[in-house]
Amino acid sequence: MNEFATQSPYPMIPFEQAMAIVWQHVGPLAPRRVPLDDALGLVLAQEVCAEGPHPPFAASTMDGYAVRAADGVAPRRVLAEQEAGRVLAVALEPGTCVRIMTGAPLPAGADAVIPVELTQESEGWMQAQASIEPVRNVRPIGADLAAGQRVLPADTTLGPAEIGLLASLGVAEPLVYPRPRVAILATGDELVGQGQPLAPGQIRDSNSYVLAAAIRGIGCQPLRLPRIADTRDALRQAILAALPEADLVLTTGGVSMGTRDLVKPVLEELGTVHFGRVAIQPGKPLTFATVQGTPVLGLPGNPVSTLVGFEMVVRPMLREMANVRARHRPEREVRLRQPVRHDPERLEFQRARLQYQEGEWWAVTTGSQLSSRLMSLVGANALLCIPQGVGNLPEGVQVRAILIHEPESEEMPGLYDG
Amino acid sequence: MNEFATQSPYPMIPFEQAMAIVWQHVGPLAPRRVPLDDALGLVLAQEVCAEGPHPPFAASTMDGYAVRAADGVAPRRVLAEQEAGRVLAVALEPGTCVRIMTGAPLPAGADAVIPVELTQESEGWMQAQASIEPVRNVRPIGADLAAGQRVLPADTTLGPAEIGLLASLGVAEPLVYPRPRVAILATGDELVGQGQPLAPGQIRDSNSYVLAAAIRGIGCQPLRLPRIADTRDALRQAILAALPEADLVLTTGGVSMGTRDLVKPVLEELGTVHFGRVAIQPGKPLTFATVQGTPVLGLPGNPVSTLVGFEMVVRPMLREMANVRARHRPEREVRLRQPVRHDPERLEFQRARLQYQEGEWWAVTTGSQLSSRLMSLVGANALLCIPQGVGNLPEGVQVRAILIHEPESEEMPGLYDG
Repeated sequence: MNEFATQSPYPMIPFEQAMAIVWQHVGPLAPRRVPLDDALGLVLAQEVCAEGPHPPFAASTMDGYAVRAADGVAPRRVLAEQEAGRVLAVALEPGTCVRIMTGAPLPAGADAVIPVELTQESEGWMQAQASIEPVRNVRPIGADLAAGQRVLPADTTLGPAEIGLLASLGVAEPLVYPRPRVAILATGDELVGQGQPLAPGQIRDSNSYVLAAAIRGIGCQPLRLPRIADTRDALRQAILAALPEADLVLTTGGVSMGTRDLVKPVLEELGTVHFGRVAIQPGKPLTFATVQGTPVLGLPGNPVSTLVGFEMVVRPMLREMANVRARHRPEREVRLRQPVRHDPERLEFQRARLQYQEGEWWAVTTGSQLSSRLMSLVGANALLCIPQGVGNLPEGVQVRAILIHEPESEEMPGLYDG
Repeated sequence: MNEFATQSPYPMIPFEQAMAIVWQHVGPLAPRRVPLDDALGLVLAQEVCAEGPHPPFAASTMDGYAVRAADGVAPRRVLAEQEAGRVLAVALEPGTCVRIMTGAPLPAGADAVIPVELTQESEGWMQAQASIEPVRNVRPIGADLAAGQRVLPADTTLGPAEIGLLASLGVAEPLVYPRPRVAILATGDELVGQGQPLAPGQIRDSNSYVLAAAIRGIGCQPLRLPRIADTRDALRQAILAALPEADLVLTTGGVSMGTRDLVKPVLEELGTVHFGRVAIQPGKPLTFATVQGTPVLGLPGNPVSTLVGFEMVVRPMLREMANVRARHRPEREVRLRQPVRHDPERLEFQRARLQYQEGEWWAVTTGSQLSSRLMSLVGANALLCIPQGVGNLPEGVQVRAILIHEPESEEMPGLYDG
């Protein structure tokens, strides 16, 4: 049995310094082409212009009759029926018309469409109730997009409307910053998977599920790796195998000072460890390395440390990789509803629920802040940032809150107030 | 060639009446068990309680030495090393200790853990720098969850923390309202898929991409069906084939009054059409039917009508099916930055961008509101509701805005203010 090292070889650095180091090694992924059906939420890497005009032909916006407006209200002879999707070999002479469907191209010689509701057709002749002005109910060439028009600038996030525009232009595989792929490796001999019996001293792996869900929740692609034994060899093999599949490798557990805490030594062996301790609570042993150019983040094994580490470090990294403009969550100033105990040596992220009372936002912590207690995140809609350098805080003090939930209509009016 | 019907057989009903009819036929899906990796965003159908206490054993929260606190600062003999994941057959006598790792079970006889940083070990003896109080650095049985405690109530939406809790309890397949599956059928002979050449009079299908993205964006499962010819037979076959795969069938196009508008007649033949025209703009020919108990919604073929119809009708339906509490988007009152032309016969949803100026929220419309013009949705963060019964509106008037984008940190402070 090996003896403990009693002092960590890694200096404890402030959170801001840790993030500055992260940004030296993490940037947008190399753009590539992605099918439209996989492009939701991704960011365009180049502007998209319309080659030709849209629509490329003058089209009817109604079901009715394509006419020459100048013919007035005299009865018109019906020459043919113009469906959408093809072009009739017919041209309107004075006194004639063509039945036309919504979206169909306007026949040669026609300049307006009379809606069917305002007409009567009988034995090949159409009688309109009134005359019509030219261009009415016609969508001219280029009405939606002019030829050459810039449709979407680079750095546009693709929502449903943007994806529809690309589809209408025939851009089947836009050039985008791809969806980051994140490998997840939960370490710890005490961890047992779902469906297997728990022996004494064992607990179930929850971290890999927490991370996979959080990664999926921001539109990235999780890859949960099989759990491995706590040996140097197994950990080395697992990390090396994950590298070609992942833009970021996350480990959980194994970053403390125990004799089985192998993540740091294995990362030292495989690549460069940029930091190994950060002055935050939870999450002090947070470790960041690069191996063959790929960032590897070692999160502590406690579930709350894992999820808070995701919010504060992993999420901004993934948004940067995806080149999303808003890297960070919205924030607001709130007041403490109860006193808070706080160790001045670290920046602490306390889980809280924000409530609007008496014209102000108040933070109520979600009970025991034990790092193991995932219940402290259930119902939490904010992380309170209790800064390094200050001690316990009395009720009523103002602190910064990071909003970690999307707003829901009825429930949180005002939460996203500036 | 068939003649037109000049009057629609469907009465034009107000939007509120249409939605009331929808709610008579749409409700939460039957709950079923879903693997944790597919459960993000779904809603629990039954409460979940902890069977036993968590943790099930007293565990160390530090790397260090498990001790008897009463032994004070005298040197202690090191008996063994207690790793996480198994239980040592050792019990502490006075004057002894056990090396222990974070998360490992506390050995019999121990009542506290001295962190490794405060110790020195040499030749089998450990010397602590100071004494320690009982229970320090020990996470007692049940510290996170008491036996029998209700962990998550029914109707909880499963986020990463909730999924982690279920994993830690060994609930591998929670009982949830399943993710709605939505079949998408784009009709129209003028539509051409990606990668195929466009003939004169043809345009590319964009609606099926718009809908698939929007469906995916709210965590539901889209199924894009192959495009079909505009014939009764093809449409009938496609709808019947989609029914067993889908909780909701969406069609686009084919709901106007043209001779090729077959959606309504086919739905009448297969099931019951509950309404066929709604007093809204865009989207007047919106059609709702049930076929073999499954809801079928016929959206108009214009891309903007499709996406606005999704926002105003499909999204609430899908959230109801998934039993999500907040069925609707957040709303706020805003003022018009420019005059708005409006037909008093219908409720209109205008695409707009909201901007905060001079202490108020102002709506700027996104250019031409042509139903074909998807560009009117690019950059829009709101739909303005211009009510039925009023005509043109001057600048400065207050209207209701539905917020259709998630807030982004830097960009929209205050948008979600109550």
